[in-house]
Amino acid sequence: MILQPILNLVSICSQKGVNNAVLSPGSRCAPITLAFVRHPKIHSRTISDERSAAFIALGMAQQLEKPVVLVCTSGSAAYNYAPAIAEAFFQQIPLIVITADRPPEWIDQWDGQTIRQEGIYGQHVKGSFTFPDDYNHDDKVWHANRIANEAINLAQQFPAGPVHINIPLREPFYPEDGEVFSFDTKVKQIEAIFSESMISSEVKEKLKSKLSGFNKILIVPGQQRPNEKIQKTLDRIASLDKAVVVTDTISNLQSEESVNFHDHFVGNKLFQEDLKPDLIISFGKSIISKSLKLFLRNSDAEHWHIQHGGYTPDTYQSLTNTISCQALSFLNFLDENITANQFYSALWKQLDQKVKNSLPALLSDAEFGEYKAIATCLKVIPDHSKLHLANSMAIRYVNLLGIRKQELICNRGTSGIDGSNSTAVGCTFTTKDPVTLITGDLAFFYDRNAFWHNYTMPNLRIILLNNHAGGIFRLIDGPAKQPELEEFFETKQNLTALNLCKDFGFEYHSVSGESDLASVLEKFYHKSLTPKVIEIKTESIRNADILKQIKQKINERID
Amino acid sequence: MILQPILNLVSICSQKGVNNAVLSPGSRCAPITLAFVRHPKIHSRTISDERSAAFIALGMAQQLEKPVVLVCTSGSAAYNYAPAIAEAFFQQIPLIVITADRPPEWIDQWDGQTIRQEGIYGQHVKGSFTFPDDYNHDDKVWHANRIANEAINLAQQFPAGPVHINIPLREPFYPEDGEVFSFDTKVKQIEAIFSESMISSEVKEKLKSKLSGFNKILIVPGQQRPNEKIQKTLDRIASLDKAVVVTDTISNLQSEESVNFHDHFVGNKLFQEDLKPDLIISFGKSIISKSLKLFLRNSDAEHWHIQHGGYTPDTYQSLTNTISCQALSFLNFLDENITANQFYSALWKQLDQKVKNSLPALLSDAEFGEYKAIATCLKVIPDHSKLHLANSMAIRYVNLLGIRKQELICNRGTSGIDGSNSTAVGCTFTTKDPVTLITGDLAFFYDRNAFWHNYTMPNLRIILLNNHAGGIFRLIDGPAKQPELEEFFETKQNLTALNLCKDFGFEYHSVSGESDLASVLEKFYHKSLTPKVIEIKTESIRNADILKQIKQKINERID
Repeated sequence: MILQPILNLVSICSQKGVNNAVLSPGSRCAPITLAFVRHPKIHSRTISDERSAAFIALGMAQQLEKPVVLVCTSGSAAYNYAPAIAEAFFQQIPLIVITADRPPEWIDQWDGQTIRQEGIYGQHVKGSFTFPDDYNHDDKVWHANRIANEAINLAQQFPAGPVHINIPLREPFYPEDGEVFSFDTKVKQIEAIFSESMISSEVKEKLKSKLSGFNKILIVPGQQRPNEKIQKTLDRIASLDKAVVVTDTISNLQSEESVNFHDHFVGNKLFQEDLKPDLIISFGKSIISKSLKLFLRNSDAEHWHIQHGGYTPDTYQSLTNTISCQALSFLNFLDENITANQFYSALWKQLDQKVKNSLPALLSDAEFGEYKAIATCLKVIPDHSKLHLANSMAIRYVNLLGIRKQELICNRGTSGIDGSNSTAVGCTFTTKDPVTLITGDLAFFYDRNAFWHNYTMPNLRIILLNNHAGGIFRLIDGPAKQPELEEFFETKQNLTALNLCKDFGFEYHSVSGESDLASVLEKFYHKSLTPKVIEIKTESIRNADILKQIKQKINERID
Repeated sequence: MILQPILNLVSICSQKGVNNAVLSPGSRCAPITLAFVRHPKIHSRTISDERSAAFIALGMAQQLEKPVVLVCTSGSAAYNYAPAIAEAFFQQIPLIVITADRPPEWIDQWDGQTIRQEGIYGQHVKGSFTFPDDYNHDDKVWHANRIANEAINLAQQFPAGPVHINIPLREPFYPEDGEVFSFDTKVKQIEAIFSESMISSEVKEKLKSKLSGFNKILIVPGQQRPNEKIQKTLDRIASLDKAVVVTDTISNLQSEESVNFHDHFVGNKLFQEDLKPDLIISFGKSIISKSLKLFLRNSDAEHWHIQHGGYTPDTYQSLTNTISCQALSFLNFLDENITANQFYSALWKQLDQKVKNSLPALLSDAEFGEYKAIATCLKVIPDHSKLHLANSMAIRYVNLLGIRKQELICNRGTSGIDGSNSTAVGCTFTTKDPVTLITGDLAFFYDRNAFWHNYTMPNLRIILLNNHAGGIFRLIDGPAKQPELEEFFETKQNLTALNLCKDFGFEYHSVSGESDLASVLEKFYHKSLTPKVIEIKTESIRNADILKQIKQKINERID
């Protein structure tokens, strides 16, 4: 049986520019699956493991800046989406999550693949809708259209995020012989026209007068995609010493003008007093650097957070103003209304420069390990290509290494190790540029089902830091001192990527030293039909030592 | 810092006989992890992928009939438990799910690994509790003890199920030098004394008089563990023709006296009228057979469901009485108060016998495929050992094959394909008997992280039916007719288990014919240090044909 409201849902997606769907197999969802697959303008892919499917959709939506549709069958399938939905919610990525369901009368009757799906994603979706369970009244047909329009609009409205549409379905699920899918090109669409938040001239005057009271201004952009216009404004502000721009690596706003090596010195007690700002200006999402967070939390500064709308976090425990405004327009206003403080700026820049000058030699002298390997790789990974980083060590190393030119992507909404492979896979579906994933062994094997599908990913490159454990635990004093360190914190694991690469037909290279790595990297970005993997074998205990040694030496240089 | 209320929670677990914990690595959860690991009477294991960890705990609790503890860190980790928690909820398996959390002030501040964990499992836990975020008042210490006692009691009270304890924790997470864990052996315990439901003599008199009005009684046990006493009573009832006992394979109550091959004939229109009962008596959980469900739904019979308490499902759309009582005591009462109907009983038994007599020869003549392979394996799998079956085809084939003597386990709470490997792995942690898993390729590779840990499973045996697709979709008319069958329903996949076996050190055998299979089976249950896998390679399209052919031939024999 063909249900026109389901076809209309798909038409509305397409008309609203939602052109990608990630489906997982099932029978209950067949009417939805077939509608997406048969719509001429929607590209559907199928992924069997719903946990990976959802992160793949997230990886796509991240790049496309458009919602991606997820479709799964009834039962526990829906719950396998949950980790990615939480990530999408906090990373503000739009997803249209469609779950097929039994009709209401069959819930709690112990029939197969039946759970309590309504509202299943709790507080991690922007909205949760249930389609009518039949369409025998005009109002029900109207309601289905309403839900489709509202859900897709809501997903895209700032802050973007996942929405859930639960669709109860009764048999028969499949078209009968001769039944033809006919998409209504004139289906009713409720167009959403999104506003920009602007501050009035009156407010501007007030802020202007307030600004004149500050002369140590620190701009701290959080996670966001590269943005040329913002970059230009920030560079101008920083180059004129009007403010110090501290760019954590996930801000994607690093430049020669900004401070990029702060993670090495903001925790240093010697300079903290002098580095303290009197005004923090933040925009974008979270940052990585724990020492920067702690520094800002102890700064006693005013803190203005700029965002278009939604709830305001207070990551630095210092929030005084939340300003509803586009970041760019506020930064331009700022640029016009603040004056230089060369002394304050110089202190930051000098420290930054010292680290920048010291680090290459220190790395060059250091023993081979993860730190050095990542530094070497970053030089080879093409500029402006997509660089995915897994939690937890990969992203930290990159943050320590300062400036780089790739677009950096990392699941910092929930900062889980789950789903990094899948997110990178999703990214390969949106671009022909190289997509590089730098990951640790725990994150990599955790999400190995990311690769379990039939789509090619010729542009995928994986740099796997395999120390056979969760190395981060050796870097935290607490666990490192416990006798349970290896079994219950690091959780030693024995796998290498060799057999996985055989399974999925990936090109595989194993390296354990610098010259090996350099030689593999030479051709690593040559075109290929399949993904390529470099597995860098190091020892967790040595990596921890190397990191500590370099940290100490840098401290000596800047003291 | 050591938090005594956390230690007390662990002591209470131990005192209540909860002696197994499955932990996943993390830093926020360290105080909980260390408390479980260091408790002298609790056996803790660590599993990195929380999705598998939760199904492993479920597989253990299923066998132990005692709650198993799960512990994970904050953030998306908690959501990876969700599929297993839904399964545990509907399968009524007790789990104590402990999630570490940020303290309330850090929720929604964009700090790392922070989601909205309170009540995260929605309607799929029996209770959801939040520990105090500090213990600076006696009432908070009392509250923590309250929660620990209440949660563990609730998990075990009928119907058993998962409970969630969310524990907000502030740094420091680790004991300082010299701090010693000291478990309070006299920690306050609220003892739960569980009742048995019994029906009064008055009610019995009424039921007795009602029973005299029925003479076609069908007893349909649902999913449960083997139970000798129930078995004996049922066998007596059936042997005396007082009622027909139809035992779906997951009832674990099959015998020579019961009807075991019903799946072959209850859908046959020729006999339906004569087979119809006037009273259905059910107990236990769900059944597998769709044709039995449909038959019962159209029976126009009265239906009495016997269960100790909780909500009553109406799987057969026929419920007239729900009787709060232990199944055994009701069955004994029934036995004393009904009389034989040889004619009704004979019809069922004759049909059952006909199938039983025909099937071996039909299978023997049939082409090699999944059906035949499973029949062959069932003869070799040791009696009374543990037999795990994955959804969706494995369990259906076994149901068709009638009587067998292993304890059958299958995740029919939600009937998902996720987690079958992990459930079997959990089972190996509870017994030295052989644990055999029969699974399809989709379920097997979906849950491959089940094996990603450092514990030995010498008694694990896996029979993998690899047809490189979700074969069930070829058996349903709807999808089989769609052009999207292979890509979007069957979802062809290319993996074999060879590389997986190399990764995990499993003994691997690949077979594609009967003599191969027989020869591997000869030594398959010989003792070993590692798990063994037989991968049976068949074609999805042929399997579907074989099943249809045998079905048709059986219909011819019984017509």
